[in-house]
Amino acid sequence: MITAASNARIKRLIQLNQKARLRREEDVFVAEGVRMFLEAPPEKIKEVYVSEHFLERCSCRGRLEETGYEVVADSLFEKISDTCTPQGILCVMGQSHYNIEETLTKKAPLLLALENIQDPGNLGTMLRTGEGAGVDGVLLSSDTADLYNPKVIRSTMGSIFRVPFFRTKEFGKTLEKIRQSGVRICAAHLQGSREYTKEDYRGGTVFVIGNEGNGLTKETAELADVCVRIPMEGQVESLNAAVSSALLLYEAKRQRGEMGR
Amino acid sequence: MITAASNARIKRLIQLNQKARLRREEDVFVAEGVRMFLEAPPEKIKEVYVSEHFLERCSCRGRLEETGYEVVADSLFEKISDTCTPQGILCVMGQSHYNIEETLTKKAPLLLALENIQDPGNLGTMLRTGEGAGVDGVLLSSDTADLYNPKVIRSTMGSIFRVPFFRTKEFGKTLEKIRQSGVRICAAHLQGSREYTKEDYRGGTVFVIGNEGNGLTKETAELADVCVRIPMEGQVESLNAAVSSALLLYEAKRQRGEMGR
Repeated sequence: MITAASNARIKRLIQLNQKARLRREEDVFVAEGVRMFLEAPPEKIKEVYVSEHFLERCSCRGRLEETGYEVVADSLFEKISDTCTPQGILCVMGQSHYNIEETLTKKAPLLLALENIQDPGNLGTMLRTGEGAGVDGVLLSSDTADLYNPKVIRSTMGSIFRVPFFRTKEFGKTLEKIRQSGVRICAAHLQGSREYTKEDYRGGTVFVIGNEGNGLTKETAELADVCVRIPMEGQVESLNAAVSSALLLYEAKRQRGEMGR
Repeated sequence: MITAASNARIKRLIQLNQKARLRREEDVFVAEGVRMFLEAPPEKIKEVYVSEHFLERCSCRGRLEETGYEVVADSLFEKISDTCTPQGILCVMGQSHYNIEETLTKKAPLLLALENIQDPGNLGTMLRTGEGAGVDGVLLSSDTADLYNPKVIRSTMGSIFRVPFFRTKEFGKTLEKIRQSGVRICAAHLQGSREYTKEDYRGGTVFVIGNEGNGLTKETAELADVCVRIPMEGQVESLNAAVSSALLLYEAKRQRGEMGR
């Protein structure tokens, strides 16, 4: 059992929670909680840490024996946890690397592209909603928050393990490549020329969503095949970015006849 | 200028940010930031506090002269602010009291009813989305988070000033009253018998949304005229509560012909 805060593994776990760069260098991330442990693809689990208290009471000991685990003193577990009330289990997992080419070979792919999304809760919710609406993948500009940030992971509610995503330094170029494979670029824009329910999303579609405060950059908006607008009553200036994504993705799902009227 | 942390008004402001009960007793709340100050109905503003630094640089001095204001030392302003990077302006405002009867006399009202919503960001986003979709009012069960919590106020982006809301200890009874005025109770439910896009929301409709983790209570679900389900792909167990509200409200808006196809 690890009991010393000076233990090198403990120090590393704390750093992995805090630093995106370290996560990238080691090609890993930290996922916390029983649900994450149980939903994680077994081959991705590299290390498992449990608190004494958790180990005494947990009902997943069989699974723990399979993966192997390390016990951490309760007081110390609080230090490596990113939450205020830790469940007592935490895994170090390998990052996933998806190939966008594969996604683009699908028939009429449905994609979400996020430019400079900053709020971890929003980002996680978008992945979760994306899975619900049946997206084939999510493109992330390199200035979007790190998907492996512990707060993002929590808000995905497990979708992090299931939705393919692609982080790119060349957001515009990648959108162009997506278009060349026959997918239409539909950007959410406050000054969009068309109401979002009036466009047809049954063919390959990528919805592009911009930063919470500033929306899309001019360059990205100009790339779009169409800029769509979500109508708003009252004095609302804009909707929350995760809400906008949800409305667009579920409108596509509705049109694609997975829901009738 | 107030410079002492021991100042009684400073102590009270800190308490007003933290304690829902004190806010209720005094029938006030604290709204922070320039945007809130400018969007607030003038008759609701009771006190305005600005930091020295803000006062030097602000472009709303005319408005400040109208409302009156008190200057607070910069270092002290950080203490009364609920944010990490305070803008330097904060108002104490009177709470609003709306009458649900008035709302129910409208033609085909569109309402949102929230049972035990706990996340301040979700709650604020629901009010903001509600205004965008054109809701006539929002009903809140008494165990829902306080709408006047500073984090909720921030996420409403000003909708707190414009959307009528009703907090009730008798959530079920109030829903019954709403139904008696000819409004249909449509509850969002994971086991709902109908897909949400297949119901007709053109008549008076109240969407009922339950707690983030546990959904609706059994009693509330049983009150509903219909339980509607938002279909989900993949292994998603549920959607974020603010996302679910948005999908239902905008489906109603779409059907009501404010958007065509």
